[in-house]
This record gives sequence, structure tokens and C-alpha cells, in this order.
Amino acid sequence: MSAIPPVPAPSPVWSVDPRTGERREQVGAEATPEVVDSAVLAAHAARGALADRAVRSAFLRSAADQLEAGRDEFVAAADAETALGTARLTGELARTCYQLRSFAGSVDEGSFLDVIISHPDSSATPPVPDLRRYKIPLGVVAVYSASNFPFAFSVAGGDTASALAAGCPVVVKAHPDHPATSELVAAAVRRAAAEHGIPAGVLGLVHGFEAGVSLVEHPLIAAAGFTGSVRGGRALFDAAAARPTPIPFHGELGSLNPVWITEAAAAERAEEIGAGLAGSMTMGVGQFCVKPGLVLAPAGPAGDQLLKSLGRSLADTGAGVMLDHRMRDNFVTGVAERADLPHVEAPVTPGPGADNHTVAPGFLTVPAAELVQDQGPHALLLEECFGPVTVVARYADAAEAEALLARLPGNLTATLHVSGAQAAGADGGAELLARLTPLAGRVLVNAWPTGVAVAPAQHHGGPYPATTSTSTSVGTTAAERWLRPVSYQSTPDALLPPELREDNPLGLPRVVDGRRE
Amino acid sequence: MSAIPPVPAPSPVWSVDPRTGERREQVGAEATPEVVDSAVLAAHAARGALADRAVRSAFLRSAADQLEAGRDEFVAAADAETALGTARLTGELARTCYQLRSFAGSVDEGSFLDVIISHPDSSATPPVPDLRRYKIPLGVVAVYSASNFPFAFSVAGGDTASALAAGCPVVVKAHPDHPATSELVAAAVRRAAAEHGIPAGVLGLVHGFEAGVSLVEHPLIAAAGFTGSVRGGRALFDAAAARPTPIPFHGELGSLNPVWITEAAAAERAEEIGAGLAGSMTMGVGQFCVKPGLVLAPAGPAGDQLLKSLGRSLADTGAGVMLDHRMRDNFVTGVAERADLPHVEAPVTPGPGADNHTVAPGFLTVPAAELVQDQGPHALLLEECFGPVTVVARYADAAEAEALLARLPGNLTATLHVSGAQAAGADGGAELLARLTPLAGRVLVNAWPTGVAVAPAQHHGGPYPATTSTSTSVGTTAAERWLRPVSYQSTPDALLPPELREDNPLGLPRVVDGRRE
Repeated sequence: MSAIPPVPAPSPVWSVDPRTGERREQVGAEATPEVVDSAVLAAHAARGALADRAVRSAFLRSAADQLEAGRDEFVAAADAETALGTARLTGELARTCYQLRSFAGSVDEGSFLDVIISHPDSSATPPVPDLRRYKIPLGVVAVYSASNFPFAFSVAGGDTASALAAGCPVVVKAHPDHPATSELVAAAVRRAAAEHGIPAGVLGLVHGFEAGVSLVEHPLIAAAGFTGSVRGGRALFDAAAARPTPIPFHGELGSLNPVWITEAAAAERAEEIGAGLAGSMTMGVGQFCVKPGLVLAPAGPAGDQLLKSLGRSLADTGAGVMLDHRMRDNFVTGVAERADLPHVEAPVTPGPGADNHTVAPGFLTVPAAELVQDQGPHALLLEECFGPVTVVARYADAAEAEALLARLPGNLTATLHVSGAQAAGADGGAELLARLTPLAGRVLVNAWPTGVAVAPAQHHGGPYPATTSTSTSVGTTAAERWLRPVSYQSTPDALLPPELREDNPLGLPRVVDGRRE
Repeated sequence: MSAIPPVPAPSPVWSVDPRTGERREQVGAEATPEVVDSAVLAAHAARGALADRAVRSAFLRSAADQLEAGRDEFVAAADAETALGTARLTGELARTCYQLRSFAGSVDEGSFLDVIISHPDSSATPPVPDLRRYKIPLGVVAVYSASNFPFAFSVAGGDTASALAAGCPVVVKAHPDHPATSELVAAAVRRAAAEHGIPAGVLGLVHGFEAGVSLVEHPLIAAAGFTGSVRGGRALFDAAAARPTPIPFHGELGSLNPVWITEAAAAERAEEIGAGLAGSMTMGVGQFCVKPGLVLAPAGPAGDQLLKSLGRSLADTGAGVMLDHRMRDNFVTGVAERADLPHVEAPVTPGPGADNHTVAPGFLTVPAAELVQDQGPHALLLEECFGPVTVVARYADAAEAEALLARLPGNLTATLHVSGAQAAGADGGAELLARLTPLAGRVLVNAWPTGVAVAPAQHHGGPYPATTSTSTSVGTTAAERWLRPVSYQSTPDALLPPELREDNPLGLPRVVDGRRE
């Protein structure tokens, strides 16, 4: 006789104060597979409500309005859970609203539909029939929120905004660092949906690690977007690829974001570059995906001066609170492991702050030769370390710097600092840039990678492990991740979707027989 | 004391005559991992030679010229290995040349570079710096040839042409059904390369199953294109996803290509539809990826008449030789298994032809209800069967037809046959089309899916297992599979690639601050 095992109660989800490590409040419970299934089914049922592009763009604008209307409440909630500070979070919320409205504009404009029409052409080999192609939504998208951007890369962030813009309902897996903020933002988006008669299921929200795994494996999930660690992202990527029906998985996993400072640049602007680097690497307590984590600085006096400037600026930067205590522990341990390596020095030691909850910024130096030759423990220095630390590799000459660049994994960004003469094209400036291009999805000159603008020409992605696909998660083209083309052949005008009819009733931009209209 | 094991001799590769099953000649040997490595390294070394777009397009045109110059030889070689016949192969070669020249035109025109420029905008949130985006080649592409198109989907076929157009060198894994043709075509392409100073390594060619596995796992392979079976394609897709650095895998695996014939269409055009179906399903001995493999025909007299017309046309179609004896055996076995299922009938029995080498076309019928309700053995009828057979599901009403459509896996094509009134928009014609769109990448009305035109608006791909990505392998947009975007931020004009300079020295089509130029 066997007893029926009791159904375990779902684990509670807690909102935690990173400034103290203490629980603030319970925010619901981790989603069981049944709860995940309900959320996906509700999202799937809502997809028809997004079919009309005018409704879709109005919904996105209303979502921005709702976020702005509750700004103070949302910022306070996010600060209590992330310690990112009111100023930064207010800016991040504004960015999130700008992004939602930007995608609304893109939905109205219609270029993302990629309408291409080929009229019949009997001179082609083989002859071309009437063909009309555009892009349609893939289906329900799973979005995995980031820890470090509770607004801009979370519930109503770029993945969600671009998916809704593409016509895809979304189920978000909340990040455990800001569950209460996630619930507030989801409710705001659902209020916006209700204004346009769109069911609340258009934006699902689930909590819990296991829920995230169930989500990517759900048969009705058609694609996924992820921002987080290499370990977590790769596990979900693998699960997406192993499904009976594999799905596109657009993950942003990790990036060193190398910065190459030429000898001439250091000679010309050591103070400025050192100060700029300090600002970029400590922004958001070093918790940006585009934090410069590896700096190639010349050996010798100009480089020395640059590092002194960096050190002074870091000394002026106070300790900060990281997003959670696990991250803080990983930072402290990760920095210590790196600092213990042979030939590694810590002119300004990064590590634990004065109390149990903060961390102090700093940097490590290592001869570039160690990273070029060594296949052993120094490889750790070429792995991302989340938090306010950067590794400065001192190179003897350009050849050594290039040899080190050749060993790097893929990155979101790669930055070049050059002299005025090099910027004008002298001394092989263009060749230097060509060395960086294979490494990253965004290449900067005499600038810093932190701060990712929302713009049509933006590309936030890069060779693996920066991202698992060739697409971007920021900027207008991010919507293309959630679409697939379909071509109609020999289809009477009366049966075609209006986007493809001969007289272009919606006034869409399109390419007809090779000509842009 | 241990003996050094002898190095096994590489297995010979044979060209086989499918009309007799006999070996014609030895064509080299299966590639060892060392040979694969050499081919990939040579391709990687050749990538710089493709950097200049003018050279690239001239090379593609020369490749077409070389193929045309050797046409009779190539067609004879392919016919000897595939039995596809001189007429069909002459047409296929012409298509292949047209495709190469079409991509050359696309390279010259430059839209595929997707140039987007965002000028600085301090009114944006956050402010937008100068950003300039275009697309660059991914690197060396692995191409897995198809059995059924020795020219158009093989060594110089769409995957190779689009990869070269994108600036990516290629290593082809030859299909074992036409190794001699593969070598001849590769030599022709290399002659074209030599005309433009491009190293021969720009197009590698390897033989053997194991070589194909080594190829997709090679660290310098940046992406792969595949046309073939679900089983083989999925294994390579899995290998591509499991790499330390996963790569995009654009595989075309399998497709039923459903055809839905409405009651009204059958009543109006039973004879014509039956004859058209016979022509489409037997084209190339039923060995097309877009062969209509499942037909939804109404029960009742109009459907009966349609099937009589189909049967008469099939009776007029002679037996044919399949690409190899393994395929022939699979066809004969696969048809017999399907015909043995309960409630399945074979009004014209497909199966072995009069001799040991041919197969005769035919079709099976089954009540649609069996496929809607049954989760058991009838599921076999929803799997692709390569060769001249189609399964006709007789449906009682539109609801039953729709229920069956809802059970289908993804497809390359879905076809609707409607009456004149439905084509004009009456009787819910547009709604019928909307039912088919989720199933496929190309939707046809009153036409047949065989024959895939090379055109800007073409889309040859579809939901899994039709393809493993959302891209196309035919048509102008096929080149996008081998590119990735990169964005340059705050980069002085003197350092930018010419494609992105402010004054547009190359005259490229581009989008600047949202406006097309």
C-alpha cells in the first residue's frame, strides 16, 4: 500500500534588501510547472490581440505612460531591492519608457516588416512567379530578466518591448534580485494592455529557477531572450537547442569589453584616459555588461601615469553596494583569486568595503606577456569578473598587444584609444581598428563602452559568449529576433494580408522589383 | 612493449551509377580530420581575398561563366551519378549560374550590408552618440550538399553562392551521391577564383560522413548550411549547438508541403488539380524538398473525380530511377509500411518499378479522421517519404481539414487550392489562407510548390523541421545568414571602413537618421 506523497508547497519568493541582506517582504511563490503552463497558454491566447499594428504601438506608448505615472513608486521599489540609487534608477526608467516609445514608432513606420515584392518575370531562370514576402511574429517569447537593470533589461525592458513590437506576447522569468519591482512593472504593463482591450496574459511573469527551465522547454514558447551569466545562459541555450523543436535563443552572456590604449594615446592623454576608465568601470558598481574588464595599456612612463590617474580617480570613488550578497561574495573571491596569481599586482586593491555589504573598487595589473604565453591559471584574467574591478595588461609593443587581442573570446564591445594624429588616420589608425572589429559587436574610438544608446544604428551583441546569436538586444533592429519571413506565391490580391497588397493600402515602405518605395 | 598501430588508409570514395548500382570510378578518398583541418585553414587564409566587393562579384560571375563553359561535361557527369536526366540537369545548371549572377548583382548593389547611421542626438534618452552599423562576414562557412540537386544545392549552389557573396570562404562536404560532379564543379569555381587572384582554398571540398562531423566541430568554422534529412541535419545541428562556441546552423531538414483543396475548388477544377498534383509530386522522381507529400482533398464525388484525374496522370508517368539504391529501398519500404496501415488504400500503388532500379509513382488515401484522432501508427503518414508518393487525406468538412492542419509539423510550403469565387475573396478565402500561414515559409494559392524561384521576395525555409533557423536558403536574403552586424561608435571618419563614411564614397543604399538614402 503506497501513500500519496503530499504536494510540496511552492517555495516563497522574497524581496531582499542588498544593503542589509535581510528579507523585506514575500512576493508570491516560485512558479510550478502548472503555473508556467498557465502563463504560456494565456500569452498564446493573447497573440491575436497584438495583430493590429496600430493597437500594438498604442499599447507600447501606454505602457511607457503607465511606467512614468508610477515612477516614484517604481524607483523606490527598485532601489530597495537593488541599491542602485534613485538617480540611476530614475534615468533607467526614463530610458525604458524612451525604448517603449521608440519601438512604438518603429511599429507604426513598418520597415521591420521587410516587405519585398517580386512581380512575375519570365526572363528569370527559372521564371519568377508573383512573390510577396514580409515578416510575421514567431509566437510567445520567453524573456529572462537581468539582475543589473531592473527596468531596462527586465519585465518591460528591451527584450519585452521588442517582442511586443514584433507582435509576440511575452512570459518573463523575473530576476530573483528584484521580484517586487518585477510585479509592479508587470501590473503597469497589464494596465496599459487593458486600455486597449488586450488580455492581461499578453505579459506573463513567473518566479523561480525551475520555472525558467520549464519555460524554455514549453512547446508553445517560440523564442527566448536572456541577459545574464555565461553559466546560466548557456544552460538555457542548451535546453532551447535540445527541444524536440529547437527555438531561437538570443542570450547575452558575458563580455570582457577590452580597451586598447595606444602608446601615443597614453602619451597624449594619460590623465584623461585614466579618469575616464575609472568612471566607466565603476559605473553601477561595475555591474554593467559593457564594463571595461580588460585594459591593454603600454608599459613605460606614459602608461604608468595613466594608471596613477586611474588610481587617484578610484580613490575618490566610494564603496558601493552590489545587487546581492552572492554577487558580492563572488566579487570578493574572484578578485582575490586573480590577485593571487604570479606577476599580478593590485595598485588599488578591489575587495570588501568597510562593512559587510559594500565593495571597494580597484584594479589589477599583469604583464601582457603572461596572458599571451600562459595557457594556465592566468586564463582566469580573461574571464569576466562582475563588479568594480578591471585588469590592466601592460604590453611592451604593438605586436604583444595584438597577440593578446588574438586570444580573447567574443565581446559586446571593443574600445580603442588613440592619439589625435592616429584619429586623423596617421600611424595606422584604421589598421588598429580593423584588429578590434573581429572581437566585438560595437567598436568605439576615444570613448567608453558603458552607456548603450537606443538608436537604429545600435548593435548590442557580439561573438560568443557575448551573445548566442548574431542579433542585437538594444536598438530598432532588436525586433527582428522575434519574426520570421513568409512569402506568398501567386496569391490573389483579395486573399493577401493588407501589408502585401499591390496598391499598398497601409503605405508601408517596401522593395518592389529591387526598387525601394 | 606496445606496437604502433598502423594508420588506416582513408576509405575510397566511389562514384556510383544509380541506373545499375555499379561503381563507376573512384573519386579520391574520405577526408581525415587532418584533411578537413587543412581545408578549413586554407579557406580561413583566403578570406582577405574576398574583402573587396568588386572582386567578389566578379568572382561570382566568373564562376557562372566557368560552369556554363563546361556545361555538357558537367551535365553528363551529374546524369551518370544521379540519373536525373539531361534536360532537368541542364535546367538546373542554368539556374545555378543565374543564382551566382544574381548574388553578384546583390553584392554590387550593397543593400545586404544594411548600413544604418544614427547621428548624435542629445534629445534621446540616453543621448545618442555617433553610431554607424553595417554587416560583416562571419568567417568560414561549412556547406553540406544535397543529394537531389547536384548543382543548385551543392558545391556551387545557393548556400555557397550566398556565403561567397557575403564574403565568407566555404568548405563543402560533398554529397556521396555525386562526388565526381562535386569535384568538377569545385575545380570550375577555383578556376574562376584564380582569374581574380583569389586562392583556391576559398572553396574547399571534402568527402565522407566523418569529415562532415569534423567540419562542423572545427573551431574556425563560423556557420553552416545544410540541405538533407531530418536525421542527418538534426545530428549536425546538435553538434553545432554543443560546440564550446556554438555557431549558427541553417539546416533545411524535411517538409510535408501540405496542399489543401477546398470542396469548391474540387467541384470547379477536379481534372486540372488532379493532373497538376501528379506533375508536381512526380517531378524529379518525387525527390524535391517541396514535393506535395500530404493532400487534403474533400470526401465525396468532386474529390473522387480529382483522384481519378490524379490516377490517370500517374498512369501516364513512367517509372523513374532514384538517386541511389538506399533511397530506393527506403522508398519501397516506407510506402509499404504506410500502405499497410488500417484504413489506408492505394488506388495507384507506388513502389518498385519493373526492374531492380526504378520506382513507380502512386498515391495513398486515408480518411482525415484517422490522422486527426490517431496518435499511434498513423503518425507515420505525417512524416516525409522521399520519392514519387503522396498521401491524400479525405476530409468530411472544413472543420476536420483544419483540425488536421493543426496537427502538422513545420513546412517549407503550404498550398491552397480554391474556387474562382474564393480567390476573389468570397466564402472566407482570406481566412483559409490565414490557417496555412502558421504552417510554412511559403504559401501558394492555386499553384504547385515544386519550382523555387530565385528572387528577392523568395523565402525557402519554414518552421522546424522545415528549417532550423528563420532564414532562407534561396533568394537574395539568403546572404544574411553569413553576416553579423557591427556598430562603430564615435569613430573618426578617417578610421571608418569606407562603407560607413559620412560622404558615402561607395554610394551604398543606407538609412540615415531614419531616412532611406
